[in-house]
Amino acid sequence: MSEPIYAKLSVRIFTDRKCFGPGVAELLRRVDRLHSLRAAAQSMEMAYSKAWTVIHNAEEGLGFKLLHSSTGGKGGGGAAVTAEGRRMLEAYEAYCEKLRAYGAEKFAQIFDFYGKTEDSAP
Amino acid sequence: MSEPIYAKLSVRIFTDRKCFGPGVAELLRRVDRLHSLRAAAQSMEMAYSKAWTVIHNAEEGLGFKLLHSSTGGKGGGGAAVTAEGRRMLEAYEAYCEKLRAYGAEKFAQIFDFYGKTEDSAP
Repeated sequence: MSEPIYAKLSVRIFTDRKCFGPGVAELLRRVDRLHSLRAAAQSMEMAYSKAWTVIHNAEEGLGFKLLHSSTGGKGGGGAAVTAEGRRMLEAYEAYCEKLRAYGAEKFAQIFDFYGKTEDSAP
Repeated sequence: MSEPIYAKLSVRIFTDRKCFGPGVAELLRRVDRLHSLRAAAQSMEMAYSKAWTVIHNAEEGLGFKLLHSSTGGKGGGGAAVTAEGRRMLEAYEAYCEKLRAYGAEKFAQIFDFYGKTEDSAP
């Protein structure tokens, strides 16, 4: 019973469908850094077609664009996070952070019993 | 933009491994009602072997039994949730409920922008 116990929270956002969660958030963060959805997907070992579908589905569900693409020209085909995509990502991160902080406090209270009443001594 | 937006939270509990989450919780609730892990698994369309593995892995991770089995006798092979299993399930449900209540309030605040600044009129 010496292993610490802890919780992981996962937050998924829905409208008419699942449209935002850890995967979309990570794609947006990486597009921001790598300026390309293809590079973002590769860096997560995700197929580009999968990443495209994930983003497209999220955009459909949210009703706005998360990425705009700058096609054409030398080194074309880049992508950037839209202003609304950024606002969505920031809201998602703020929400997750609030939940984690509150959750950590409540977890310590509610799971306080764990490991205290076991027969097995260490 | 007329679809309401909402979040779903998922809570998974870890020690040296993932050991408790929505699946284990639902199995315990159903064992409580059906007095059998086999019946509980069937009612969730889960293979009995899968349910057994899920419970066994959770018990190993937590360091205590979640179920005791009453084998032998007529209609033998039944199962019941242990006192510690019950306490764990109640703690998990209390924790999830606290998070959901807090999460709903914060979500309304943080995602207040959603649907308000879209160009597309309904």
